[in-house]
Amino acid sequence: MKKVGIIMGSDSDLPIIQKSVDMLDSLGIEYTVHIFSAHRTPEETAEFTKSAKENGYGVIIAAAGMAAHLAGAVAANTTLPVIGIPCKSSVLEGMDALLSTVQMPSGIPVATVAINGGANAALLAAQILALSDDELSEKLVNMRENNKKSVLEKDAKICAQFNK
Amino acid sequence: MKKVGIIMGSDSDLPIIQKSVDMLDSLGIEYTVHIFSAHRTPEETAEFTKSAKENGYGVIIAAAGMAAHLAGAVAANTTLPVIGIPCKSSVLEGMDALLSTVQMPSGIPVATVAINGGANAALLAAQILALSDDELSEKLVNMRENNKKSVLEKDAKICAQFNK
Amino acid sequence: MKKVGIIMGSDSDLPIIQKSVDMLDSLGIEYTVHIFSAHRTPEETAEFTKSAKENGYGVIIAAAGMAAHLAGAVAANTTLPVIGIPCKSSVLEGMDALLSTVQMPSGIPVATVAINGGANAALLAAQILALSDDELSEKLVNMRENNKKSVLEKDAKICAQFNK
Amino acid sequence: MKKVGIIMGSDSDLPIIQKSVDMLDSLGIEYTVHIFSAHRTPEETAEFTKSAKENGYGVIIAAAGMAAHLAGAVAANTTLPVIGIPCKSSVLEGMDALLSTVQMPSGIPVATVAINGGANAALLAAQILALSDDELSEKLVNMRENNKKSVLEKDAKICAQFNK
Amino acid sequence: MKKVGIIMGSDSDLPIIQKSVDMLDSLGIEYTVHIFSAHRTPEETAEFTKSAKENGYGVIIAAAGMAAHLAGAVAANTTLPVIGIPCKSSVLEGMDALLSTVQMPSGIPVATVAINGGANAALLAAQILALSDDELSEKLVNMRENNKKSVLEKDAKICAQFNK
Amino acid sequence: MKKVGIIMGSDSDLPIIQKSVDMLDSLGIEYTVHIFSAHRTPEETAEFTKSAKENGYGVIIAAAGMAAHLAGAVAANTTLPVIGIPCKSSVLEGMDALLSTVQMPSGIPVATVAINGGANAALLAAQILALSDDELSEKLVNMRENNKKSVLEKDAKICAQFNK
Amino acid sequence: MKKVGIIMGSDSDLPIIQKSVDMLDSLGIEYTVHIFSAHRTPEETAEFTKSAKENGYGVIIAAAGMAAHLAGAVAANTTLPVIGIPCKSSVLEGMDALLSTVQMPSGIPVATVAINGGANAALLAAQILALSDDELSEKLVNMRENNKKSVLEKDAKICAQFNK
Amino acid sequence: MKKVGIIMGSDSDLPIIQKSVDMLDSLGIEYTVHIFSAHRTPEETAEFTKSAKENGYGVIIAAAGMAAHLAGAVAANTTLPVIGIPCKSSVLEGMDALLSTVQMPSGIPVATVAINGGANAALLAAQILALSDDELSEKLVNMRENNKKSVLEKDAKICAQFNK
Repeated sequence: MKKVGIIMGSDSDLPIIQKSVDMLDSLGIEYTVHIFSAHRTPEETAEFTKSAKENGYGVIIAAAGMAAHLAGAVAANTTLPVIGIPCKSSVLEGMDALLSTVQMPSGIPVATVAINGGANAALLAAQILALSDDELSEKLVNMRENNKKSVLEKDAKICAQFNK
Repeated sequence: MKKVGIIMGSDSDLPIIQKSVDMLDSLGIEYTVHIFSAHRTPEETAEFTKSAKENGYGVIIAAAGMAAHLAGAVAANTTLPVIGIPCKSSVLEGMDALLSTVQMPSGIPVATVAINGGANAALLAAQILALSDDELSEKLVNMRENNKKSVLEKDAKICAQFNK
Repeated sequence: MKKVGIIMGSDSDLPIIQKSVDMLDSLGIEYTVHIFSAHRTPEETAEFTKSAKENGYGVIIAAAGMAAHLAGAVAANTTLPVIGIPCKSSVLEGMDALLSTVQMPSGIPVATVAINGGANAALLAAQILALSDDELSEKLVNMRENNKKSVLEKDAKICAQFNK
Repeated sequence: MKKVGIIMGSDSDLPIIQKSVDMLDSLGIEYTVHIFSAHRTPEETAEFTKSAKENGYGVIIAAAGMAAHLAGAVAANTTLPVIGIPCKSSVLEGMDALLSTVQMPSGIPVATVAINGGANAALLAAQILALSDDELSEKLVNMRENNKKSVLEKDAKICAQFNK
Repeated sequence: MKKVGIIMGSDSDLPIIQKSVDMLDSLGIEYTVHIFSAHRTPEETAEFTKSAKENGYGVIIAAAGMAAHLAGAVAANTTLPVIGIPCKSSVLEGMDALLSTVQMPSGIPVATVAINGGANAALLAAQILALSDDELSEKLVNMRENNKKSVLEKDAKICAQFNK
Repeated sequence: MKKVGIIMGSDSDLPIIQKSVDMLDSLGIEYTVHIFSAHRTPEETAEFTKSAKENGYGVIIAAAGMAAHLAGAVAANTTLPVIGIPCKSSVLEGMDALLSTVQMPSGIPVATVAINGGANAALLAAQILALSDDELSEKLVNMRENNKKSVLEKDAKICAQFNK
Repeated sequence: MKKVGIIMGSDSDLPIIQKSVDMLDSLGIEYTVHIFSAHRTPEETAEFTKSAKENGYGVIIAAAGMAAHLAGAVAANTTLPVIGIPCKSSVLEGMDALLSTVQMPSGIPVATVAINGGANAALLAAQILALSDDELSEKLVNMRENNKKSVLEKDAKICAQFNK
Repeated sequence: MKKVGIIMGSDSDLPIIQKSVDMLDSLGIEYTVHIFSAHRTPEETAEFTKSAKENGYGVIIAAAGMAAHLAGAVAANTTLPVIGIPCKSSVLEGMDALLSTVQMPSGIPVATVAINGGANAALLAAQILALSDDELSEKLVNMRENNKKSVLEKDAKICAQFNK
């Protein structure tokens, strides 16, 4: 199965990436984690991205805050699907990162997930890889089923508490 | 190759979907187009979505405006990757549709593209399908190359006009 | 008298729902509380909603955050009045939930209250039920009167403190 | 059956109110239409509102733009359910009216619908009145059914056009 | 000299009003402080406001949060200048209160100051009253002079610290 | 009676200022109109402002768009009350001008009216001047009365049209 | 004197760049104009930027809309001062481009001007180049003087029209 | 080499200015620090600014919050490049300061950096001064190189941690 390449723009984004990593681990998907900056290490970013396909990557996840160019800069250098995670910084509640990530011009899409949405980025990557991996596809169906059960259990608890 | 299922929430979204359709046509990707409403035809939406995988779909694109629940409602019923297009309506400049589409809770991701981003949604779908289709992958690389050439030609023209 | 069905999208919304519950308790209105997720348990949500009218519910309150589809998903499955509470999450100050709840398309209204407005949602439900319940109607008038008295008492205290 | 009292803050809101009126007409619900201003005719607004219950009204719809106080001013003077329509004016895309209408303090709820949501306001009023009117309730179910059919017909047309 | 009438919508606004009170005290301006709610005690609000001019008030300051109707409701009942203070509540960073206070319709102006701007509201009231009170006018000029000196002293300190 | 000094930052703001002028004319208040720019003619702005009080002005109205510093720059040079009109320009729907005008720091208030609120700025100026001018005060009361009548006439017309 | 390198992300930004060009022409500053896209021609963008200093450029102006990465991508590849012009596109009123341009991470500044601010970008470039060019510096002072005169002439005209 | 003039609108902005100072120190650039207020000490601000060029300044940095007029007021009085730092205050997340700083009218540009972007403001000043200072220019290239190394080291650490 293809790998997921995870890139964060700064080590301050690690708590969000940790959620991606945990999700991929739980699904048995291989990945690598890098810190590349669209602005401070543009060449390393481009180099990694350009060779990603031949290096066995199937999806790239890029997380960044503020004027979050990372996902777009990655997407500019590969035709692999690129997933962008906008990260909330100390001002503007994450709106700057969201708009910088999602409002990509025609020709270079970034698959954007919610602000700080580390887990969903990994899940989306898994859904993409599962298109050609029936075992992974089944795991995703099971995870959904488990999530559903977990909500139903919480519902049962709430019912017991409130509904006499 | 797997098909792309395109769903729009209302026929007023057709101009945006037309850009998706044109892109898929130009890449030789099979697709179907439907009008389903998360709120007015929830059962038809769910039915289509639940059977999408076995009906040969690989990706679903959902376009909707205002409180744009369509992509999320689709994503809730399949583990296929779902791409959401937020559509600008007559108020709030598309911000309502963007936030309603992208801010999905953990467990159910929607791959969100730019407001009114019909072409990019189709391109993202193609990038996903290309993971297991080398011919399509090559087409995408060529399209990138052509886009690049088109920008360079425009640059040459501008240079001729302004830079003596 | 008809019951109020309270649904929250996640148990993290409980503090807001508690205010709804307290208000309904103080007015002697029957209710049930559930955790249903528009995305994780869509079928249970639909099932509860579709049978709500015949199960004796008169109003449904739905509370959710982020891309808050819950109230809309409920409203899509019943013609009972549905009250939506947008819940503030860790980003965007609740604006995402507000727009996702209130900007419903023509045909499927959601009666939206303020962000985190748990008490007002319950009060609105009571005002609706009071249309055919004179005793409840009187209780609401009395509560208004008491609220007024409480403001006037605070005013008297402030007057004593500041106005010599 | 109880009547619906429709109030608009200015005659410039008439196109939005016309949609409310058309909806109520199509459902056979009685209504009156008034222009009252929370700021220019506060006493007339209060007078109408305070006597609304005894004058046979069951729900009040209030539409206003900018610092849209009308629905709140009405809600302050009655315990009938009050539905607020925020109207878009020439600046700020309706955001001012939305926040002024929905962000009501605890104790005085306003059931807010989408910006310019004249039809949905009337539909919500009908859903409220239908709680004690089985005939109206049935009409609402039928209207839903018809809306659904209309979406399905549009879907059929789109299918014919795009899906060969 | 005419008095300043200070009204807050809730006792939670007291810290902001305290800054108004301190400013008026420092300028020797008479005032009264009240808690009136546009929604919970609309009649008391109107009564106070309508008789304000004959009771010796020259300016009214109104502070409120969320859908902040208080200043507008006051302005609707008097031709005295009304100053509105939008108060930040627990969501939306005060934007709701700002728009609800400042976006008044033609015919009923509210002189709006910054979010939480208690001191400036009092200062503006003083500037208005000073038009017919030369002593107060002089005090305002002196206060400006003192503010200026205070900034210059801070500047001197910073210069000593940074500029060798 | 004191005069009103009207300043606009650019002649493109003239349509908004015309509304101020019409209002002042209708109330028989003397005024002058100037184009001064906080940035392009800062000295002329300061000079006019500093001598405004001794030149017989009682209130200054300042209208500007974008980073609307004009009202604040005027307020920095006088202790006369300064009324700010934020003007909508071609981007951002007037939000930039609103925040630049209203969010003044402690010590230098600007009495801000609605975006493009030319008429209300003049009305607020009149309300301020009326504090020491009983005739003007009466005119304002009459204008209110006439506004009220005009709303009531519109209401009567709407009633005739809709309420049989 | 050093040249100004002007880059636009798309030929749709030409009207904005034309204002930059006109300003530079009027000041006698040499420049070149290019269309480079951060996403479609990243290598050409980097190549031009990396060699800009040795090719005689002193400042680079970059204009782009939506997720406007161009200025940041340029700034990442040079230590020359980079001026960013956020361009308004068909949605969100230019807010996306503004935040994507200005919210740069520490280490890679972009000197951002107003949305669509083509003339000011060129003027800022001129102010930078004038630091080591006394003749240009004098031209800038003269232009200011002329701008001032133009405002004063408009003021004189307005005065003649309104102030009798 | 020319000096950098740093101005902050209030001593509460010192933590942000400290980052500017540290950056300039590390690059060996001379500077002075002042507290001037566009509104409280407009004359001192103008005086400093008007004489800045002849006093050996090459760039001015101005930091302010709320209705942040400081940078614009400085820019109005000099043709030196002026860099604006919008500072986040206790409401609105810095959006007010950003728009007040960046949305300058044609003719008076302000080079705006990110909200609270003290370090980048100094870096931008250095990039401007480096145009005529080869030694400084080299320092900037080295700093970039070091930043890059620091990111690469962090990347190496992350790789060691996550990628086995």
